[in-house]
Amino acid sequence: MDLPPGGYGFIVHSILTVGSVAFDSIKTPMGEASRVVGGAATYFSIAASLFTDVRLVAVVGDDFGKDQMDVFAGRRIDLKGLQSVPGETFRWKGEYSADLNTRETIYTHLNVFDQFRPAIPESYRESPFVFLANIHPALQGEVLDQVKAPRFVAADTMNYWIEGTPKELRAVLRRIDALVINDEEARQLSGEANIVKAARVIQGMGPRLLVIKRGEYGVLLTRENGFFAVPGMPLEDVADPTGAGDTFAGGFMGYLASVGEVTEAVVTQAVIAGSALASFAVAGFGLDGLLRLTPDTVRARLAEFKQLTFFEDL
Amino acid sequence: MDLPPGGYGFIVHSILTVGSVAFDSIKTPMGEASRVVGGAATYFSIAASLFTDVRLVAVVGDDFGKDQMDVFAGRRIDLKGLQSVPGETFRWKGEYSADLNTRETIYTHLNVFDQFRPAIPESYRESPFVFLANIHPALQGEVLDQVKAPRFVAADTMNYWIEGTPKELRAVLRRIDALVINDEEARQLSGEANIVKAARVIQGMGPRLLVIKRGEYGVLLTRENGFFAVPGMPLEDVADPTGAGDTFAGGFMGYLASVGEVTEAVVTQAVIAGSALASFAVAGFGLDGLLRLTPDTVRARLAEFKQLTFFEDL
Repeated sequence: MDLPPGGYGFIVHSILTVGSVAFDSIKTPMGEASRVVGGAATYFSIAASLFTDVRLVAVVGDDFGKDQMDVFAGRRIDLKGLQSVPGETFRWKGEYSADLNTRETIYTHLNVFDQFRPAIPESYRESPFVFLANIHPALQGEVLDQVKAPRFVAADTMNYWIEGTPKELRAVLRRIDALVINDEEARQLSGEANIVKAARVIQGMGPRLLVIKRGEYGVLLTRENGFFAVPGMPLEDVADPTGAGDTFAGGFMGYLASVGEVTEAVVTQAVIAGSALASFAVAGFGLDGLLRLTPDTVRARLAEFKQLTFFEDL
Repeated sequence: MDLPPGGYGFIVHSILTVGSVAFDSIKTPMGEASRVVGGAATYFSIAASLFTDVRLVAVVGDDFGKDQMDVFAGRRIDLKGLQSVPGETFRWKGEYSADLNTRETIYTHLNVFDQFRPAIPESYRESPFVFLANIHPALQGEVLDQVKAPRFVAADTMNYWIEGTPKELRAVLRRIDALVINDEEARQLSGEANIVKAARVIQGMGPRLLVIKRGEYGVLLTRENGFFAVPGMPLEDVADPTGAGDTFAGGFMGYLASVGEVTEAVVTQAVIAGSALASFAVAGFGLDGLLRLTPDTVRARLAEFKQLTFFEDL
């Protein structure tokens, strides 16, 4: 399905993404889900595929069967780069606090992901848009080594890599256009408590654009002069925050790629697209909120974001 | 000085406010200030007076001299209702955490405020706009008993009254149009962790409008259908958050009164006006950020809020 604006005529700007496809077990105050399909690259791909063609690079074990593969079926997602190898799929279990603002990881079993080396299919190498989901920065670098002059590269990372592999992370930061992280990670990476100073320090490390996710408070984006900010959509029923950040990134990159032009105005719209999809993702457990989306519900939510934020000039 | 939009011709819609005028001692990671003029009604009045005439009802001791009175001089603030009585002025001392998000009250000496009973001068009684700053809800009620059919009444409160005087607070809530509180107070007052549910519960207690302050994350406003939200202006230098909420309320009410008409569109603009003034208040210690404002700097900040939040339709 195509969402606005749908890009320029016949040119499709594809997105290559690399990251985890996983089995998640999730517990929140609203309920539980056990061994459901998850993973950063899964949320990203499904979200981005609402806007454009997505090329997925990831690995699953032989326990990831046809039923699981069905989450990708009928969508604009190319699975040529999804390796299936003997062994078990990456498994993660997390439990959320009463206010949903913090979560504890019960376990992380890398399984087949432990030996994962991204092999980019020949047909993926000219992808104009690239999203490096949250994996080891050395692997993110290997992906960039294999693609030919992408027009726009964005990456995610996390505290684990900021602390554990700072050198590899810095090398990746020098090669990307945009970094998509949360506010706590921005403070940690920069060593600055003030978010304006933090953003400037991180931009000095390489990425021209910084997209800072603030959970229920929305998203902050650096711009040529100052910032763009959008609040989170106030939601009455939040079932499960898992994958909200990856869904945001999918909507953000999907929208950018569908327009094909990365101007400041388009980037601000892309932040809205990402925020809209994320607001659906948290309404269901696991992928449920995302899988049941239709173009009409997304269009309605985009209009709601306008109503949420618009004011007449004073 | 007049700020946009300046209202309808010659009609001035005054605001009556009641609350504390105090001596504050403040410590933040950026510095200290000792025994400076503060208090909710002070911040409110100075902020609101940028837009319209303000009538102040409060009490000070005989230690509050001409130098202190000077903060009100040359502004659109009527001091007929400011009682001066023998004794010491209300004193408060607070110390902020490293990230400025929490503060500890070192002491609160009510002094002359302990016996304060608001006496509304005859010339104040037909004030069309009323703001009840954060004082005992029974005193807020006494003020409402003395004014004649105000068009729009807003109030602030805090956890101390929510816990300690719930019955008196409920009585006030039934008599006001808008409640201006922070998100923690909204959760406490409603007993709901989810902010959408919290807002609905509080509206059921009386106030048609709820304005929820979220510190650096901005402000959330209920509207007929859903919400209006504005992020906080990202600021590189925050010296002292003291009075930010009262300054917001002053800008909010001042703008509303200057227009004189409380439509949904005007209320959203009023939230921007309040946010703009609050963003200046936190840049200096005590009242400094507010006292040095000019119409030009305010107008520039209003435009910055537009740039911060505007996106083209998707």
